[in-house]
Amino acid sequence: MYTVYGMSASGNCHKVRLMLELLGEEYQWHEVDSVNGGTRTPEFLAMNPNGKVPLLEFAAGRYLPESNAILFYLAEGTPFWPEERLARARALEWMFFEQYSHEPYIAVARMIMRFLPADHPRRAELPMLLERGNHALGVMERHLSGNPYFAGNDCSIADIALYAYTHCAGEAGFMLERFPAVQEWIGRLEGRHGFRPIR
Amino acid sequence: MYTVYGMSASGNCHKVRLMLELLGEEYQWHEVDSVNGGTRTPEFLAMNPNGKVPLLEFAAGRYLPESNAILFYLAEGTPFWPEERLARARALEWMFFEQYSHEPYIAVARMIMRFLPADHPRRAELPMLLERGNHALGVMERHLSGNPYFAGNDCSIADIALYAYTHCAGEAGFMLERFPAVQEWIGRLEGRHGFRPIR
Repeated sequence: MYTVYGMSASGNCHKVRLMLELLGEEYQWHEVDSVNGGTRTPEFLAMNPNGKVPLLEFAAGRYLPESNAILFYLAEGTPFWPEERLARARALEWMFFEQYSHEPYIAVARMIMRFLPADHPRRAELPMLLERGNHALGVMERHLSGNPYFAGNDCSIADIALYAYTHCAGEAGFMLERFPAVQEWIGRLEGRHGFRPIR
Repeated sequence: MYTVYGMSASGNCHKVRLMLELLGEEYQWHEVDSVNGGTRTPEFLAMNPNGKVPLLEFAAGRYLPESNAILFYLAEGTPFWPEERLARARALEWMFFEQYSHEPYIAVARMIMRFLPADHPRRAELPMLLERGNHALGVMERHLSGNPYFAGNDCSIADIALYAYTHCAGEAGFMLERFPAVQEWIGRLEGRHGFRPIR
C-alpha cells in the first residue's frame, strides 16, 4: 500500500490524492505541515533532500518526490497516461507548463492570500502574480476553447495536474468567470470523472 | 526534418540541440531573440501562445513547446528514455526538479549576469537566487555522490535537462568547485556522451 506525505490544503498534494482515488488505490495519508517547517526536519530531509511535499512512499523506505512525476508513476499503464506518442508528449507539455508558468503564480498567490496574515509584506507580490496567473489561465482558455482535455481526447494526468490549482484559483483572487472554457472543463472533470475540490 | 525555434544562448534551447545531435537527427535552427521580444510577436504567439522558446516544429505547422516535453518526445524509444518503470519516473522527477527548483534560480541568475547591464535593479535578486541555486546544486551533489546519473544506470534525458544550466552555472556566479560530484558528472557527460557546452 502507498503512503503519501502531504499537506491536505496544498494543490500539489491534492493531485496525488485525486490520482490514487480515481485509480481506486488504497493509501495512507501522513499529514505534513509544510507551511510551518514540517518539510525541513532532519527526518523529512532524509526522505526528500529537496524538502518538499508531496512525497510518495511506494515501497518500504523508498520515496518518490515531485507531484507530476508521482502522477506519471501511478498512471503509466492506465487510461490516464495516453497511448499515442504525441498525446504523451502533450501531457508532459502541459505538466511542465503547470509547474513553470501556472503554479508559481496561482499557487503562490493562493498561499499568500490563505496562509499569511493580511498585513504580510509578501502581499506586494500579488499584482505581478495575478498578471502572470491570468496569462496562464488565458493560455488554458485558448486551448480548451477547441479541445475537451489537455492531451488527447480523454482525461489524462495533465488534467489532474492543472485542475489542482485552477479549480481553487478564486481563493487567490482570480476571476474564473473570465475563462468560460476553463470553467466548463472544471465542471466536466468534477461531473464525469469524479474529481473533488480541495478542502 | 525538425525545425527548432530557439535562442542559442539559452540553456533550455541548448537541451533540444544536444538531444537532436546525440540522436544524430537532422534539424534546422531558427534563431529567436527572446531577450528582445522575439517570442512576443503575433507570428510567434500563433505558434506558441505561451510565448517561450524552445519550440519544436515536428511536422509542417505543428509545434511542441516546453524543453523537457520536447526531450521526452524525441527520446521515447531510444536509450535516453529508460526502459524500467521506476527509472522513467525518476527521469521525470529530476526534470520537474530542474524546472521548479533549479532553472528559476540558476538560469535567472545567469540571465541577469549575462544579459542585463551591470547597474540593472534586478541585480538585487542575486543573493536569493544564489542561495536557492546552491540548495539545488547541493541536492544534485548528494544524489551524484552515490549514483553516476540521475535516472537508472545510464545517461537519460534527465541528465540532458540538468546539464543545460549546470555546466554554465559559473557564468551566474556559482562556484562549481564546491560540488565535486557535479563536476565529475559534467566531465563524464562531456567525455563519454559528447555533450558540448553552450556557446
